[in-house]
Amino acid sequence: MNASIPAITTGPLPASSKIHVRGVHHDIAVPLRQIAVSGGCPLNVYDSSGPYTDPAVSIDIAKGLSDNRGNWLRDRGDVEEYEGRTITAADNGFAQGDRLTPSFPQQRRPLRAVGNRAVTQMAYARAGVITPEMEFVAIRENIGRAEALKEARDGEDFGASIPDFVTPEFVRQEIASGRAIIPANINHRELEPMIIGRNFLVKINANIGNSAVTSSMEEEVEKMVWSIRWGADTVMDLSTGRNIHNIRDWIIRNAPVPIGTVPLYQALEKVGGIAEDLTWEIFRDTLIEQAEQGVDYFTIHAGVRLHMIPLTARRVTGIVSRGGSIMAKWCLHHHCESFLYEHFDEICDICRRYDVSFSLGDGLRPGSIADANDAAQFAELETLGELTKIAWAKDCQVMIEGPGHVPMHKIKANMDKQLEHCHEAPFYTLGPLTTDIAPGYDHITSAIGAAMIGWFGTAMLCYVTPKEHLGLPDRNDVKTGVITYKLAAHAADLAKGHPGAQMRDDALSRARFEFRWEDQFNLGLDPDTARAMHDETLPKEAHKVSHFCSMCGPKFCSMKISHDIRAEAEKQAGMEEMAGKFREGGELYVPVTEPAE
Amino acid sequence: MNASIPAITTGPLPASSKIHVRGVHHDIAVPLRQIAVSGGCPLNVYDSSGPYTDPAVSIDIAKGLSDNRGNWLRDRGDVEEYEGRTITAADNGFAQGDRLTPSFPQQRRPLRAVGNRAVTQMAYARAGVITPEMEFVAIRENIGRAEALKEARDGEDFGASIPDFVTPEFVRQEIASGRAIIPANINHRELEPMIIGRNFLVKINANIGNSAVTSSMEEEVEKMVWSIRWGADTVMDLSTGRNIHNIRDWIIRNAPVPIGTVPLYQALEKVGGIAEDLTWEIFRDTLIEQAEQGVDYFTIHAGVRLHMIPLTARRVTGIVSRGGSIMAKWCLHHHCESFLYEHFDEICDICRRYDVSFSLGDGLRPGSIADANDAAQFAELETLGELTKIAWAKDCQVMIEGPGHVPMHKIKANMDKQLEHCHEAPFYTLGPLTTDIAPGYDHITSAIGAAMIGWFGTAMLCYVTPKEHLGLPDRNDVKTGVITYKLAAHAADLAKGHPGAQMRDDALSRARFEFRWEDQFNLGLDPDTARAMHDETLPKEAHKVSHFCSMCGPKFCSMKISHDIRAEAEKQAGMEEMAGKFREGGELYVPVTEPAE
Repeated sequence: MNASIPAITTGPLPASSKIHVRGVHHDIAVPLRQIAVSGGCPLNVYDSSGPYTDPAVSIDIAKGLSDNRGNWLRDRGDVEEYEGRTITAADNGFAQGDRLTPSFPQQRRPLRAVGNRAVTQMAYARAGVITPEMEFVAIRENIGRAEALKEARDGEDFGASIPDFVTPEFVRQEIASGRAIIPANINHRELEPMIIGRNFLVKINANIGNSAVTSSMEEEVEKMVWSIRWGADTVMDLSTGRNIHNIRDWIIRNAPVPIGTVPLYQALEKVGGIAEDLTWEIFRDTLIEQAEQGVDYFTIHAGVRLHMIPLTARRVTGIVSRGGSIMAKWCLHHHCESFLYEHFDEICDICRRYDVSFSLGDGLRPGSIADANDAAQFAELETLGELTKIAWAKDCQVMIEGPGHVPMHKIKANMDKQLEHCHEAPFYTLGPLTTDIAPGYDHITSAIGAAMIGWFGTAMLCYVTPKEHLGLPDRNDVKTGVITYKLAAHAADLAKGHPGAQMRDDALSRARFEFRWEDQFNLGLDPDTARAMHDETLPKEAHKVSHFCSMCGPKFCSMKISHDIRAEAEKQAGMEEMAGKFREGGELYVPVTEPAE
Repeated sequence: MNASIPAITTGPLPASSKIHVRGVHHDIAVPLRQIAVSGGCPLNVYDSSGPYTDPAVSIDIAKGLSDNRGNWLRDRGDVEEYEGRTITAADNGFAQGDRLTPSFPQQRRPLRAVGNRAVTQMAYARAGVITPEMEFVAIRENIGRAEALKEARDGEDFGASIPDFVTPEFVRQEIASGRAIIPANINHRELEPMIIGRNFLVKINANIGNSAVTSSMEEEVEKMVWSIRWGADTVMDLSTGRNIHNIRDWIIRNAPVPIGTVPLYQALEKVGGIAEDLTWEIFRDTLIEQAEQGVDYFTIHAGVRLHMIPLTARRVTGIVSRGGSIMAKWCLHHHCESFLYEHFDEICDICRRYDVSFSLGDGLRPGSIADANDAAQFAELETLGELTKIAWAKDCQVMIEGPGHVPMHKIKANMDKQLEHCHEAPFYTLGPLTTDIAPGYDHITSAIGAAMIGWFGTAMLCYVTPKEHLGLPDRNDVKTGVITYKLAAHAADLAKGHPGAQMRDDALSRARFEFRWEDQFNLGLDPDTARAMHDETLPKEAHKVSHFCSMCGPKFCSMKISHDIRAEAEKQAGMEEMAGKFREGGELYVPVTEPAE
């Protein structure tokens, strides 16, 4: 490990400080990031980074983050502590000795619902209860709206219902209807709640996973911390192999964002990687194991049904979902319906007991342009709609996973069919990638599709890194993927017309127009990279206040000329006088020594 | 200069060879790139890279490329050689001694039309003549169509008229109608013609420019060569300062692609950078200077009219076009209509005499999300439509430049208004950038907009590099910008339903599915980067034939499972038997030593 990289990245982003907004109805403190602006008001922005960017909090990953939600859970009076499942050697892939990642030191006893109670946000919402989690996300979503609503709203939302203000009551209604979810396992008490739904800001997910070489706990926690620092709203832990259980503990205990998993991966490890040997009992036990740890959402590939599998045989790229292919193999071998589909009711019972949200997996998503929108893909989508109704009947929260590789002209049909078949449950898509021909640049091929489908109504975008199809992302790839998806999600928010979304664009553009270089860097998604790129050409501090930049130099600066024009226009009403003034002075040519000479 | 970087990059891309298709009607040889595929037929792809990737051609930039078009021009019998304008010290910004870039050694005398003849492709097209240039582009555009048309066409083209085959006669009709242009100055005889129009493949432009430090001729030529190697279809030389004339000579004499310029930049240099001192006479002289050199298209900001300027005063970012701001300043100072607008007729006469295409500049394009689609922008667009008719009346070829910064929901209106106001003249857009908040990533914010507007009908996309708004792009930035725009243009071609466009996606996806790693790298837009990323995790040659990759490892490979499924499905019709076969074998778990352990 490079000694110059800290084990856990902490400290605020440039010019930023952490502020907290108190709740009205509950004892909550919602974190925001405030960016100081030298030439104007500070700008508050949504902040997924957790306490790691708060200098007032000292981080010790062996202690984990503080217990935000314990009181909220106790106040509801419907959960109980219990012994929990005994951890087995199989849970960590039989890792031993040096190869075994130590367990997280301060284990809490798990919580579960009392009796058959539903302790899901959906159950409370349907009962008319506004939870602290709901008020928390309402405050988060409202950043900047009061200011922004002084001007007329703009945007095309394709039938969404984005309110002027997000009230806790609105959040409750959206969750009750199934149009939004707050992934918040009762055993993830370190969580800063967030909401996923078409009528809220578009969110992004980053995937992490353990390395084949034995990783330290710090390294695994740092992957999560690094992702959320740049804007990931949720993180999926896709670890395989050894130490899955213990690593997941370390991650969740230190995670302020929801953590998702694909429990099938761990279940497969428990049967030595032989898909056919998977059983409902092993899978069920794995769900409980992970629910007790606090996993906030499970990808469940219950939509892959036996009769759909032959539909994939003629595809260019077959089945590209790992979970989908594992279940397809199981179904074919046993020649029967998958245990995920058959036991879906029981899976719901587990999710209901801990409030684990469903992320219904698209096991048959297309892996190439040629396979987009085919019969297999849409057959599964219809099944996911059926399963959504079953889960809702148990008060379980649900989102639906989506493709994949889809050319631009077939993207909207994905969104429309998802809304129709899945009854407006939130859509959570991977990309989609709009062409197959650019390995090494698939963060970009997919950002095009992601921005579009986000605009059309997708609630959360799963990031793609430059290494997609080629290798495991490193630290830089993860950052590139997260920033790329943040900008795609923001482009979608702008186009949907979220009140307040454009404030950051406007603040940055004003800084650009006024040559406030520091503000321009600080207001961007990645201040460090912007500053480094600027400094490659004009490194001196003096150039941070230059009224030109390296692209055009002082002679050709259009921004500078625009200032002259504006200054004149503001002084003069009549064009005649304006022209006269310009004749008197205001040279365009400024004899500044060119920096590079 | 880094000694490891060759002065001029030559040699084929990996697994690629140059082939030529002969014309039927004319003595032409159209270059294609053929990519060898280990597991299938070779794939032919469009090739903008010129002789630099042809090992059979020896490159000597002091001689320039060979005279492809001399015979074609002589055969038309309507041009004459003449002495040409005398080069002045001002043309090179008064550079002297060591600071003066040497002139290109082997100067040809320029050609011009005889008398008042129009020697434009539009004039020939209207007269019913199919030129060699037209047949050349028809062959280029047709790559893969015969094969692709065996299957049903797909796509949404928003009212375009993309033919099954591009015949020379179709090209002629499109040019005659003004819907397409072939930028091809009669003095650019080294050109490999290409076409820009809504019913043809989407093209991309890369911008280059001299450095503030004195550059060598090799460095300037290499910028162009490097851009076209990765796929730039045209290159704009936006040099300013000293040596503009001589550098441009070196570039054009070595350029197989059309070269565009903004003549106003050089004219401004000639008046010491004082916008108010610009005159029609100096500008006119600069146009002739550049036309004689062989510039293929001129950006002319004739749409910025006096009465529009106050419309920009309240903008967040004013006027961001350099040309636009220079003309605005001139208009305000003199309080009269711009000399570009007033003398547009005479500009057309020059363009007609040399076949320089117009790229009517959008001097009032929006520079921020806040300013998108405003009154200033659309007022100018309407004027560009008027100017288009004037140019067409003189048989001049025209394209229209477009924005800029535009949120997704306002992009389509740009395309629709352009088609309406500019009578279907080709649209040539910069991006558009779909958000302002990601400096350092504006190749991506703009690729989103570029792919969309390309789909809607834009004919050519001007690239944006990661350094946009921050600094001068280096070699890596240029490559990143070009590849990003190639993938955006390709995404647009796929969505529009160009026959043959999907063949490369399919070939690459088949290679991916069959674990043909070398083919997968070679078929991508950037084989070197794809290979390097793969090798970071799995460097050994053995892993180039592995039936898994580093993302999932051998245990979890969905592609591998899909092969099992397909193999069974192909052997068996009935699912019963299929399941039986699976029971007998086909383990998912393959005990391969994991590479990193």
